[in-house]
Amino acid sequence: MDRKNRIRRIFDNIESDVDVLVLKNDIQPYFDRSFFYVTGLNKGIFENAMAVVYPDGKTDVAISKLDAITKDSDMTMHTLENKKDLSSIIKKLLHGYKKIGINSRGLTHHDYMLIKKNLPSAELVDVSTALLKTRMIKDKEEIKLIKEACRIASTVAERLPDIISQQGSNASEHNVNVEIDYLLKKNGADHPAFETIVAFGSNSAVPHYIGGNTRLKKGDFMLFDFGAAFERYVSDVSRTFVYGKASTKQKKMYETVHEAQEIGFDCMKEGVTCEEVHRTVKKHIDKSEFKDRFIHSTGHTLGLAVHDGGGLAEGNKDVLAENMIFTVEPGIYLPGLGGVRIEDDVLVKKNGVEILTKNV
Amino acid sequence: MDRKNRIRRIFDNIESDVDVLVLKNDIQPYFDRSFFYVTGLNKGIFENAMAVVYPDGKTDVAISKLDAITKDSDMTMHTLENKKDLSSIIKKLLHGYKKIGINSRGLTHHDYMLIKKNLPSAELVDVSTALLKTRMIKDKEEIKLIKEACRIASTVAERLPDIISQQGSNASEHNVNVEIDYLLKKNGADHPAFETIVAFGSNSAVPHYIGGNTRLKKGDFMLFDFGAAFERYVSDVSRTFVYGKASTKQKKMYETVHEAQEIGFDCMKEGVTCEEVHRTVKKHIDKSEFKDRFIHSTGHTLGLAVHDGGGLAEGNKDVLAENMIFTVEPGIYLPGLGGVRIEDDVLVKKNGVEILTKNV
Repeated sequence: MDRKNRIRRIFDNIESDVDVLVLKNDIQPYFDRSFFYVTGLNKGIFENAMAVVYPDGKTDVAISKLDAITKDSDMTMHTLENKKDLSSIIKKLLHGYKKIGINSRGLTHHDYMLIKKNLPSAELVDVSTALLKTRMIKDKEEIKLIKEACRIASTVAERLPDIISQQGSNASEHNVNVEIDYLLKKNGADHPAFETIVAFGSNSAVPHYIGGNTRLKKGDFMLFDFGAAFERYVSDVSRTFVYGKASTKQKKMYETVHEAQEIGFDCMKEGVTCEEVHRTVKKHIDKSEFKDRFIHSTGHTLGLAVHDGGGLAEGNKDVLAENMIFTVEPGIYLPGLGGVRIEDDVLVKKNGVEILTKNV
Repeated sequence: MDRKNRIRRIFDNIESDVDVLVLKNDIQPYFDRSFFYVTGLNKGIFENAMAVVYPDGKTDVAISKLDAITKDSDMTMHTLENKKDLSSIIKKLLHGYKKIGINSRGLTHHDYMLIKKNLPSAELVDVSTALLKTRMIKDKEEIKLIKEACRIASTVAERLPDIISQQGSNASEHNVNVEIDYLLKKNGADHPAFETIVAFGSNSAVPHYIGGNTRLKKGDFMLFDFGAAFERYVSDVSRTFVYGKASTKQKKMYETVHEAQEIGFDCMKEGVTCEEVHRTVKKHIDKSEFKDRFIHSTGHTLGLAVHDGGGLAEGNKDVLAENMIFTVEPGIYLPGLGGVRIEDDVLVKKNGVEILTKNV
């Protein structure tokens, strides 16, 4: 992993001239993905770990004695005997710097106060936007890991019809959810990328419905939304089916979403704005009978986080660039009846996209 | 769920006289457990959701239109069309209040700045200690949910020998990890409470080793650390076995840890300090040949979070009280050879503890 290159790009993106950057994990789950981005640390828990990163790529890392570095590292490692050592390591490493970059989106306010208390005369500058901007463009190693996370999710997606037919009348949202998570890990995921969603029938009309014990009935929509985490990188796919015979309306919903997704893929390439992609996709749905029933944005970036920066959304003027990775996930939601969402992950290229989660 | 009682206890524990309390989720995984504690909301994602809580128990909740409230609620619900609505709802609900409580341990610094920007003249007071103090004492409904999470983890713990013997020479840390997580969900967990740890051989000497592809060899320690999440409440157990015949040293390690845990249980009751429990447990290990090889604290609280406040640790003068829940998890770690940890969850009673994770 080319740590120095990542760090150089971060400092290039920081508009203010900060002297040094500090990235700190609090206790689980308040971990800063950017800590992992600059350190490449993987196996371990890393509660309360902290990275201090200098413009030349030099990096100091403080970790608990309960974690262990299993490989050689070009970073200077400091071991924390206990949480109280944090104050002294903050002072030791950061004393004397005037402008210190912090990541407000990955830092608890509690840790912000800890840093501030130990460095009362330093100016703490929020550089979270520069970090997100840097992480938007994936490097080779990141693309490799995300592709593996996508391969795992795709493999499981192909097994969904089997899971349903094996469970038959025993299929409940929870029971199917259990099998999806099992297959994700069995196919190599470290864990599911987020809480797997299985929504049957009218539950599928609520995009953030997680799942419960609803049983499957003939004619129900079945909406699945899940992903794999592989060495801290994630994938995110959604599939929708009908149990038994689909009604004309259900078919129409599905076809409209499917077309909208294809239209989304087709318009994505370097130079197009995020907003343009969303508008193009939304326009297709809005000219159908399902006008205004696409109620979320078209997609989001993927990487170390499931929502890893800006999205394909109204108001986002960011421009697509090579090696960005997005979900493309149009949907139609009819309260009471159900919803359709189809979601795949794509890698942006100069002249189009590479779909990472289909036909694997 | 007795929301009003929880809120009354929170305000009783706040030393400063704050007018109102605001609890806000950022995007996943930066969610404030205390948001769920005061709202009781469960099924859904609740990114960017916010609760505004008044001393009389009245509660306003702002949630995304992508989430849905599925049951009647005594809270006033506000729907956010998009993230931009957050500023106006903050102003609308909190304008005019002088002293506003915030939870610095559950709030990103980014959200802190958002609140501050919209309420420039308000004083934001960190009440995180009062929240942890309140949550330390579990109410009836919480105990019921934690007991269920403990039941699930115990059931899986009893199956560990079966998993190993079924896998035989195919057993790797990852393969066993997959089966543990599967059984957790199959037995009713919503998901594993945290990333399941399976460590074989010398890997078990690193307390925060997560797992990899190491294969099992005769004579290896096998250390398992996992828990169930059930309706947002968690359990946390560790078990250690030897594959094949244990050496005299391994037996001695196991017996010493086991005795230390029993001694821990025996000394826990209302009125004893957290530090005393830790010292008693550590003293037992330190008088054996494994002196100084117990390298972490004896336990931590459990509830909505895996580390839910203070722990059974050196320096913690907090006094045990009825209806607190702790893990009790002594360990011995010998670098190069391996580690033993035995962890169970206990409910503190007036005159002792109820063990929630053994012999279920």
